[in-house]
Amino acid sequence: MEYQIANRLRHVQGSIIRELFKLANDPDIIGFGGGNPSPETFPVDDIARIAAEVFACNPVSVLQYGLSEGYPALRETMKKHLLKTEGISFEDNELYIVSGGQQSADLVSKTLINEGDIIITEEPAFVGCLNTFRSYGAKLVGVPVKPDGMDIEKLEETLKSYPQAKLMYIISCFQNPTGFTTSAEKRKQIYELAQKYDVMIFEDNPYGEIRFSGEHVPPIKTLDADGRVIYTGSFSKVMAPAFRLGFMVFNKGLSERLTVAKQCADTHSNVLFQYICNEYMTKCDYAAHIASACEVYRKKADLMLGEMEKKFHPDVTFNRPEGGLFVMAFLPEGMDSFEFVQEGIRRGVACVPGVAFVVDQSKPSSGFRLNYSTPSDEQIVRGVDILGKLTYEWLDK
Amino acid sequence: MEYQIANRLRHVQGSIIRELFKLANDPDIIGFGGGNPSPETFPVDDIARIAAEVFACNPVSVLQYGLSEGYPALRETMKKHLLKTEGISFEDNELYIVSGGQQSADLVSKTLINEGDIIITEEPAFVGCLNTFRSYGAKLVGVPVKPDGMDIEKLEETLKSYPQAKLMYIISCFQNPTGFTTSAEKRKQIYELAQKYDVMIFEDNPYGEIRFSGEHVPPIKTLDADGRVIYTGSFSKVMAPAFRLGFMVFNKGLSERLTVAKQCADTHSNVLFQYICNEYMTKCDYAAHIASACEVYRKKADLMLGEMEKKFHPDVTFNRPEGGLFVMAFLPEGMDSFEFVQEGIRRGVACVPGVAFVVDQSKPSSGFRLNYSTPSDEQIVRGVDILGKLTYEWLDK
Repeated sequence: MEYQIANRLRHVQGSIIRELFKLANDPDIIGFGGGNPSPETFPVDDIARIAAEVFACNPVSVLQYGLSEGYPALRETMKKHLLKTEGISFEDNELYIVSGGQQSADLVSKTLINEGDIIITEEPAFVGCLNTFRSYGAKLVGVPVKPDGMDIEKLEETLKSYPQAKLMYIISCFQNPTGFTTSAEKRKQIYELAQKYDVMIFEDNPYGEIRFSGEHVPPIKTLDADGRVIYTGSFSKVMAPAFRLGFMVFNKGLSERLTVAKQCADTHSNVLFQYICNEYMTKCDYAAHIASACEVYRKKADLMLGEMEKKFHPDVTFNRPEGGLFVMAFLPEGMDSFEFVQEGIRRGVACVPGVAFVVDQSKPSSGFRLNYSTPSDEQIVRGVDILGKLTYEWLDK
Repeated sequence: MEYQIANRLRHVQGSIIRELFKLANDPDIIGFGGGNPSPETFPVDDIARIAAEVFACNPVSVLQYGLSEGYPALRETMKKHLLKTEGISFEDNELYIVSGGQQSADLVSKTLINEGDIIITEEPAFVGCLNTFRSYGAKLVGVPVKPDGMDIEKLEETLKSYPQAKLMYIISCFQNPTGFTTSAEKRKQIYELAQKYDVMIFEDNPYGEIRFSGEHVPPIKTLDADGRVIYTGSFSKVMAPAFRLGFMVFNKGLSERLTVAKQCADTHSNVLFQYICNEYMTKCDYAAHIASACEVYRKKADLMLGEMEKKFHPDVTFNRPEGGLFVMAFLPEGMDSFEFVQEGIRRGVACVPGVAFVVDQSKPSSGFRLNYSTPSDEQIVRGVDILGKLTYEWLDK
């Protein structure tokens, strides 16, 4: 039969880079294209031990149906953790556990976005969330993101042009794909503009704890005087991605509707991994674990960035990320990176072209994203060398 | 700030029975209200052993990001299993792993339902899925379900009245909340009507393997000549609910859009439990496990139904379910069960009133749902005794 696909999903593109990724799965290809955290950071022994203990002592507690809002002990642990590490208070806020950071975007959209609503997003931005917004029929409007966060003038112009805008989407630390971090000053400006134009903010911070240089910047959520910021994070980069666990912080006024949204989506998130996260955070040395993960990423980032400085054509620009998993390099303005990335794959190195992360995919995108968390040191050196030679050929041709 | 909740979610009721359930969590209340599978059926030792083995030998394989479509080995295992046990063929069909049966309803709605689309549902039916449909703006139209399945005349009348209907929702075995099973004859009639009026069928079968009497009836999906049936099942009742795993079977023509829907919802389902399901199904005696689970449920159902026959007022009617977790009892027609259930809770026994499972909650519902999988034998005897006395008081007052 002819399937009538719902309007909301009809125009969401499957990944534009799916074909590229298929190539990238070739074991002979050096993969700078993925976004996987480094497996050496997974606290495997503690995960295995905690799982074994609970299966031995109280298995039904982690196998039976759980609560939609999340495992109560983990919710309390996370509230204390976020108060201590990020300065987020819970007098007016609530925290739910969700099935990975991706589900936060899904539940926020389900709860707040009508078909045709405007979402203002950093551009480029994480394609996974852009697609979720699109899957609820949102219209996306991009505002360019600079090394210190969104272009504030363009943001205000956009807010003026779209007075009905409902939500702003911001990855505030070590943004995916650029690696940029929004400065404290810009966080304040963005929040004030959100107040002035009465827009909500969806602050996505899955990489925040993976800071390996520079100073901590408090989340926009800490400025939130009137409950317009929904803050979300993930256990994917600090515990393990296949846990499929994240969390959302939001004003209590949204609790009841978000519970309904969660019930309608998947009833609740898996309980064993919620239990493991809570045991690990309360009984192991979580701070030392994060410090050691940051050290892994710092070394890999330093290696890749050092090689890029040595090997890339000087007209290819990039910033040093202070954390996270990614760096974006930019070909000279006006040049599109898609063909460049394709040629890179033919030569054995996979990156992601900037076009994958933008609102309007018909315009040229000069950036290409490199991931340093997955490849080995040797692959980083060899891959950057191949790309570096290609930059000279590409720019001087 | 004043939150503008999306239209789709504004009118989805939080659970009408939430207050009842709060009471029902009182340890002094005998709980016939839940829907939890019996923990004694969870294969805890094997789950613990398989988890320990994979954490020792190949931990990264179950902790790193996985595929949106599901763990490939489990998908293959489930295809073989469904061909063998249910007669579902995979020449034209595909199978994805999802995050519990609830997510099947979410992904089907996301992919196929526009706001305002008509979904025809058995009535009463599982409130979790009805709410998911509502959360996508679907308009629900109920067709009464009889002990052998939907009232076929009313179904055809409804299809005539709503020529734009998009989907029918059917729990084909041991329906929640009634315990009814759609007969082979009615499955054929329903499928033929779906063809005649060009409607898709969402066949939900989370309890199908928990058959403790009667004969297996092949799913509607086995009749599906033109790809209009989406079949879904769950690991919640045969492994453990907190696995949050289910599966969907659908015509290959829907694969690409369902992948996008899944990516937008939660990227992928947790990998460890997918691995455990596959190991368990391929290396342990899964058939013996199912047989022993069925025996647990048969005994509990026999006990509850025997007590109901002895203790309930003869004008309170009910059918013997041939499997699953639930039986629905009906007060005489025209009587609403809501007050009856409330009085039951005051006397120490919690059931769920029929109103929780209907499309139009303003009409009287005479049924009330009893669950026999969670309470102990002693609680079953005592609880039915209390309810039985109440039926006499209620009907003779």
